[in-house]
Amino acid sequence: MTYPDIQAGPSYGSFRLTRVGVRGVKKPVRIRRPGTTGTLVPTINAFVDLPAQQRGSHMSRNVEIINEIVDESVREPVSGLEVLCGAISRKLLDRHEYATYAEVDMCADYFLERESPTKKRSLESYKIVARAKAERIDGIPVTKLIGVIVNGMTACPCAMETAREILMQKYPEGKEILQKIPVVTHNQRNKTTLMIEVPEKYEVEANDLIDIVESSVSSPTFEILKRGDEGEIVLRAHMNPKFVEDVVRDILRKILEKYRTFPDTTLVTVRSEAEESIHKHNAFAEMSTRLGEIRKGE
Amino acid sequence: MTYPDIQAGPSYGSFRLTRVGVRGVKKPVRIRRPGTTGTLVPTINAFVDLPAQQRGSHMSRNVEIINEIVDESVREPVSGLEVLCGAISRKLLDRHEYATYAEVDMCADYFLERESPTKKRSLESYKIVARAKAERIDGIPVTKLIGVIVNGMTACPCAMETAREILMQKYPEGKEILQKIPVVTHNQRNKTTLMIEVPEKYEVEANDLIDIVESSVSSPTFEILKRGDEGEIVLRAHMNPKFVEDVVRDILRKILEKYRTFPDTTLVTVRSEAEESIHKHNAFAEMSTRLGEIRKGE
Amino acid sequence: MTYPDIQAGPSYGSFRLTRVGVRGVKKPVRIRRPGTTGTLVPTINAFVDLPAQQRGSHMSRNVEIINEIVDESVREPVSGLEVLCGAISRKLLDRHEYATYAEVDMCADYFLERESPTKKRSLESYKIVARAKAERIDGIPVTKLIGVIVNGMTACPCAMETAREILMQKYPEGKEILQKIPVVTHNQRNKTTLMIEVPEKYEVEANDLIDIVESSVSSPTFEILKRGDEGEIVLRAHMNPKFVEDVVRDILRKILEKYRTFPDTTLVTVRSEAEESIHKHNAFAEMSTRLGEIRKGE
Amino acid sequence: MTYPDIQAGPSYGSFRLTRVGVRGVKKPVRIRRPGTTGTLVPTINAFVDLPAQQRGSHMSRNVEIINEIVDESVREPVSGLEVLCGAISRKLLDRHEYATYAEVDMCADYFLERESPTKKRSLESYKIVARAKAERIDGIPVTKLIGVIVNGMTACPCAMETAREILMQKYPEGKEILQKIPVVTHNQRNKTTLMIEVPEKYEVEANDLIDIVESSVSSPTFEILKRGDEGEIVLRAHMNPKFVEDVVRDILRKILEKYRTFPDTTLVTVRSEAEESIHKHNAFAEMSTRLGEIRKGE
Repeated sequence: MTYPDIQAGPSYGSFRLTRVGVRGVKKPVRIRRPGTTGTLVPTINAFVDLPAQQRGSHMSRNVEIINEIVDESVREPVSGLEVLCGAISRKLLDRHEYATYAEVDMCADYFLERESPTKKRSLESYKIVARAKAERIDGIPVTKLIGVIVNGMTACPCAMETAREILMQKYPEGKEILQKIPVVTHNQRNKTTLMIEVPEKYEVEANDLIDIVESSVSSPTFEILKRGDEGEIVLRAHMNPKFVEDVVRDILRKILEKYRTFPDTTLVTVRSEAEESIHKHNAFAEMSTRLGEIRKGE
Repeated sequence: MTYPDIQAGPSYGSFRLTRVGVRGVKKPVRIRRPGTTGTLVPTINAFVDLPAQQRGSHMSRNVEIINEIVDESVREPVSGLEVLCGAISRKLLDRHEYATYAEVDMCADYFLERESPTKKRSLESYKIVARAKAERIDGIPVTKLIGVIVNGMTACPCAMETAREILMQKYPEGKEILQKIPVVTHNQRNKTTLMIEVPEKYEVEANDLIDIVESSVSSPTFEILKRGDEGEIVLRAHMNPKFVEDVVRDILRKILEKYRTFPDTTLVTVRSEAEESIHKHNAFAEMSTRLGEIRKGE
Repeated sequence: MTYPDIQAGPSYGSFRLTRVGVRGVKKPVRIRRPGTTGTLVPTINAFVDLPAQQRGSHMSRNVEIINEIVDESVREPVSGLEVLCGAISRKLLDRHEYATYAEVDMCADYFLERESPTKKRSLESYKIVARAKAERIDGIPVTKLIGVIVNGMTACPCAMETAREILMQKYPEGKEILQKIPVVTHNQRNKTTLMIEVPEKYEVEANDLIDIVESSVSSPTFEILKRGDEGEIVLRAHMNPKFVEDVVRDILRKILEKYRTFPDTTLVTVRSEAEESIHKHNAFAEMSTRLGEIRKGE
Repeated sequence: MTYPDIQAGPSYGSFRLTRVGVRGVKKPVRIRRPGTTGTLVPTINAFVDLPAQQRGSHMSRNVEIINEIVDESVREPVSGLEVLCGAISRKLLDRHEYATYAEVDMCADYFLERESPTKKRSLESYKIVARAKAERIDGIPVTKLIGVIVNGMTACPCAMETAREILMQKYPEGKEILQKIPVVTHNQRNKTTLMIEVPEKYEVEANDLIDIVESSVSSPTFEILKRGDEGEIVLRAHMNPKFVEDVVRDILRKILEKYRTFPDTTLVTVRSEAEESIHKHNAFAEMSTRLGEIRKGE
């Protein structure tokens, strides 16, 4: 039996649509990491555009393509989620012959072994995000971005200085020591996102992005901290107080350094959000631009 | 006692930041609606940009401004959330003398009385969203957008025709009647977002946007449906099957009609997401563009 | 036209069900607070049990009852959400003649004006929760609970002492002053829930519950803090370091004091969760019991 | 350097606490499934009680224990998440010598290969949940529960009959055929949770629980459905219309059948929630009891 292809029928409006597709597909994929191969379980969104004259997009093709690419990853693990996004984007254009644009993004839990100050080892959890955009224009390569979402800790530099003033007034006999030591301030859970485009013929290692973020907050966070660790981490964070603005700028500087050979057109997004311990709202800073723009500001 | 202004200090990177501010501030505001005045409780985000030479943004000013504007709304209720966003944006530029850009967005629960087919009246819940962007350039007015998020119902036109074919094969004696009646298909909860820019000297009524969306899905949804209502709603939805693509295009056509005097530069975003009853993932369609683009496609 | 009552038909299993009903109904309700009348927008869940011999519960009745009670609240504002839950519970038993049990719960945003150390006034946001359970047994009153969810700040007492030890070793010349002052520790956003049963003929004011929680964390949080405020709040919190365990126990002690005339059978639940700034996970403490149990532990 | 053990210090209230511990720890674990070994990434909560005389619980021990058990799972994969919960519970009591009670729960994404009506194979996503409770009483075994959360589809039996009445009135010539075929109704995404205790010396296979739920909704859902599949699934669902009450009772009946040798004391919870396509709220049914209770109702 053949069934009518309603989607292929004439559109009953005559408007092009920017993005049509599926959201929230979950699949385990095999990823080849430096020295190991593991499984990630991304949540996947996949879209194409839709020309004015066509009523519907064949969305089951999107899920079929995701499945095929994921199945291939079992036989031949891919090197990163952005590579997977790119491969799906290209196949979306192949299979949706009417589309001129395809977009795929993913987000997955990710783990890295970390060591606390007293050398306690533990797997820490992160998120990897990836995106690809493909256009049906000869010679235009697929745009691929890879990124990470990292949970860290920020201690507020401003409240520290105010608290120092108050303490010095209250304890004038301690003025000298109070000028030397880190004093109390509010500190909090910070969520920082760093995404960077991976230009053709270049590679970006997600672990490097995590290192960049963790070295840019007041302190990374750890699942296991024994008493000595806790004091150590708290002191480190307070000797390194940071606004969300500072976190973003530190990351930008390290990105310039690390990816100095990347072209000026490379997209970069850095977003840092502090779940303020003294407020009910969050503090937020963002820079979203191209490497060339950041280089100008250096 | 005066405290050091750490934020005003020199930036220790030298990068401009796109957006710095607060996220997740909640405040009750007084809104003057046609024929009544009520309270909405938006969740508010408010940002400015930050020049390269300054270390931090004075974020407490953002919350102070929100408070002032909200307090004024108690004495003199404003006509819409987008007006509130616009007023806060302008004040953000006034108070952050170093900023060249300000952005504010809000999202709030909203209620309208609706009538079921058998005239049962009930308050239905929606969300109102609003956004404003201001630039420190003479003569450039604040950009303001107002929008709604509406829960509706879509019935799939494609599965209906396939099911019709199967039923006609199985019940050849019923072929004639099966060609006339709406037959079974999957239907589901649909979430559609419609946002439109409100150009200078124009007005947009959120209730109209809700009407546009509710008339563009297969059927609006209702909190109270007695048995007769249920059958009626189900039949209406099935006589009006819609892909998410159809929903977006129907809305675009009505937007063109309703706001025909609005300039070509007016921003419009329509997003429809169906929480598919036969899949674990969602179907999604989006058009994000300017009125002029849509007019071309007409 | 009359339609078949499928729900009233015979159950095709023969099992009683504990709870059947609706979840996620949103309605604005009028509440009479001390000195004022305001609107809250609770999200409401409402259930009854279902006897073995009946196939379905008439869920539209649940929403009709919610509507009626809410409409009445417009004419005659009720004194609290728990009163509303109680009234709906009773009507659920009236209208579902087959039910022997009814349960209703609600959660709504709530605001109170607070004053920062430097007397800045601002509306702070909270959540009010309420629950009622009714049984169809003569002489058994409806059980009603009222509660609050409060965002506060906790500073860790343990890491503070460890950091003090490390600082005293590093700065032996500052030993004396370091023993006097609050030193650095991790502090974080804390979410504490306090619920208490309101026995027949007693009243509980939600504002009192908020006061109890805010006085039991290291410090309440504020939307607007100018520089002097910030230092002050940070110091107060560090002079009052608290584990989540301490928060729960402080609240229990104040509950005993405040509601000393309440019967031993009164249900109490206290839950405190710290969104740890040095960890990716949360710290949690809970006591859920009856007043009599807590009194024994005094 | 040794640091003060603040947690071990005297409690400054004197109240026992029901549950103290960590929430939201994420770890990849190795699980041995029938015929294969795979990785799951549960989010883990782990608590013990706290006696009145002790100020704080040593929460870092909870995370250490989780790590040890998870590390062991790499060398020797465990047979299920409930076994893991049980092992962690026991170690919590060993390591928190002051505790008399321990509780652990987990939730993880899980995948199974399924086949659509036209034999398209695809990995479908589910959630596995598990819980264990241990008491420090000789001879009392650890209570372990395993469960699943399954996304399915329900079609409403009530609206179908009402729609049938209306259609028969409108198309009297089609009365005969309309009495035979499934007619239109609202159908929607359904989320059903099934948890069952695993008594000592018994085993429960999560895949069986998924089978029980998927065979009890109107139809399972699939990630990939080609046109023929869609019509087939839609028809099957409509020939099998179900209230959430029906879903729960069908599951109860199958549980009785499948686990007929399990003792009467075995805990069972079944919860079905329909994200109604014609309403903004959800329909919900639950039975939470012991097998003995359900057996009585048979």
